[in-house]
Amino acid sequence: MLSFQIQKPDTTIISALQNKIDNLTKPKNSLGRLEEIALQIGMIQQTLSPALLHPTNVIYASDHGIADEGVSKSPKEVTRQVIHNFLNGGAGICFLSRQHGFDLKIIDGGVDFDFPEMPQLINRKIRKGTRNFLHEPAMTHEEMDLAIQYGADIVTDCFHSGCNIISFGEMGVGNTAASSMWMSCLTQIPLIDCVGAGSGLDKKGITHKYNILSQALNHYQGDYSTKDIMRYFGGYEMVMAVGGMLRAAELKMTILIDGFIMTNCVLAASKLYPEMFSYCIFGHCGDESGHRLVLEYLQAKPILSLGLRLGEGTGAICAYPIIDSAVRMINEMHSFQQAAITKYF
Amino acid sequence: MLSFQIQKPDTTIISALQNKIDNLTKPKNSLGRLEEIALQIGMIQQTLSPALLHPTNVIYASDHGIADEGVSKSPKEVTRQVIHNFLNGGAGICFLSRQHGFDLKIIDGGVDFDFPEMPQLINRKIRKGTRNFLHEPAMTHEEMDLAIQYGADIVTDCFHSGCNIISFGEMGVGNTAASSMWMSCLTQIPLIDCVGAGSGLDKKGITHKYNILSQALNHYQGDYSTKDIMRYFGGYEMVMAVGGMLRAAELKMTILIDGFIMTNCVLAASKLYPEMFSYCIFGHCGDESGHRLVLEYLQAKPILSLGLRLGEGTGAICAYPIIDSAVRMINEMHSFQQAAITKYF
Repeated sequence: MLSFQIQKPDTTIISALQNKIDNLTKPKNSLGRLEEIALQIGMIQQTLSPALLHPTNVIYASDHGIADEGVSKSPKEVTRQVIHNFLNGGAGICFLSRQHGFDLKIIDGGVDFDFPEMPQLINRKIRKGTRNFLHEPAMTHEEMDLAIQYGADIVTDCFHSGCNIISFGEMGVGNTAASSMWMSCLTQIPLIDCVGAGSGLDKKGITHKYNILSQALNHYQGDYSTKDIMRYFGGYEMVMAVGGMLRAAELKMTILIDGFIMTNCVLAASKLYPEMFSYCIFGHCGDESGHRLVLEYLQAKPILSLGLRLGEGTGAICAYPIIDSAVRMINEMHSFQQAAITKYF
Repeated sequence: MLSFQIQKPDTTIISALQNKIDNLTKPKNSLGRLEEIALQIGMIQQTLSPALLHPTNVIYASDHGIADEGVSKSPKEVTRQVIHNFLNGGAGICFLSRQHGFDLKIIDGGVDFDFPEMPQLINRKIRKGTRNFLHEPAMTHEEMDLAIQYGADIVTDCFHSGCNIISFGEMGVGNTAASSMWMSCLTQIPLIDCVGAGSGLDKKGITHKYNILSQALNHYQGDYSTKDIMRYFGGYEMVMAVGGMLRAAELKMTILIDGFIMTNCVLAASKLYPEMFSYCIFGHCGDESGHRLVLEYLQAKPILSLGLRLGEGTGAICAYPIIDSAVRMINEMHSFQQAAITKYF
């Protein structure tokens, strides 16, 4: 597997950043999370005047063999249908990208459909869906290496286009099931607490999903290493996202984290390279059962809690204006000295 | 006092709105709060295609006689200094207004300072600060009526400029103290639970503030009617905000609610006219002690929780992009029929 050179941001700049923030015309700490985010991005960018450049949302899409076991409310064909909706501008992520000026990149990492050549769809198809992990590993070692590489290379392209803040989304019927397996295996949280409704299963559907995943876990004979868990249960889109996140951290970009699936990708990425965590900002805590638990495990503090569970990067991009506010705060607010205001603390 | 003709929005449109939202290309309810907000604004505007027009933030500013008792960390001169900062574009509310395209209106409702004529400062000064409610009512009946009228008239002006979504902010050293009095008297929540740090009091400062307010409550001989509480303890800026909110509801505008002080203004406004509540969207739950309690009392569900406690309308405007997202969702997302996606619920 590709290796990454990820460095934790230098912390010596913190006191200068905190000093600048504390001298802005407001009671100390009265802009709460905005102040924390400004500090984090100032540290990532190593400057007292950070900037958010060319924000980009990358959606990796792929199908999952495990979907054959009826673990999702959605039929498999929905993956390709939703990709058409992305390309036509009709999906949730589309209006949010337009609203916040995000460039939107859609990657076919392994959808079970032969798309015609389309300029807006980036073809990195590894295979038409992963294998069914109830019976065998979802992917081969070679496929996993390729997924990491493809995922990372897309981010390098974004970086060379001038992007310094990136969010990741996904589309893939069955990928909450795969994520629950990563989560339980990598955190030791019991599988039952990691399994949820996905795109809308009822109680009976969730029980069936749990039973299938529980069988898959019983069949698993691997070594529980992060890489093996990723390969055995992963979707191509999830492994690509791990590769993308690691490359983004290597390039010192700010990484916006979306919902349940992307949070499990951070989980895997940070098990491989703990230093990557300093580059992540968590957009929201969603409604998918288990999301709150994995966020707690990571000690992550999401910005929003709006009951979202759509994926695609929607929860990350919804939080973007708050991050933008934080950066504007540190750049645009006047200091007590500038404003000739009595410093009252 | 001025009377208002406020009607609850007609609810017959709800089923058509819900039907439109449920047919957008996403799992049912998967955009959580965005769906609820779209429903509320569709109902307020009585349309399946709502629009947010000419968003405006009105800041009412005034001084408080009670500030003479040392109930605030900030010296009184800070009120006028911060107004200069508003006018110079350096305050917290300024960068947020620029970010989200808000028109910013600053009203001098009773600041204890003679400002020169300035085109951007709207002079509605009732008196140079309220009286000290430790010893006497903060304002006369005539002053209160005038404050309601002034507050309302500004909103009428905004409406005639094409605004249909408005947020309210405040500036006034001592106004968390006044708000705590309104809150305790209007909700029967014990005063001790309504008193907080304001612009940054320490424990000793909060105890002193509580003792002063507790004495004021003991001296109070009025009838505990909403109007009498408003008049006795209120700031001009707070009464103006009540007038502004009531006029906005009368004109069927969407009202964005900011922090502790503005939430107490909704409390008073909705005691007078319960119908106004349907027009309110609560921007955030702040860090001021008591804010969470008064939100719970109102059964209000704020959009954000970012640890803000700055006032000025900052918490309301920070939430604006989420409201904008909700409106874009209902207007811009494609339906299952349009997108030719299998409806999977």
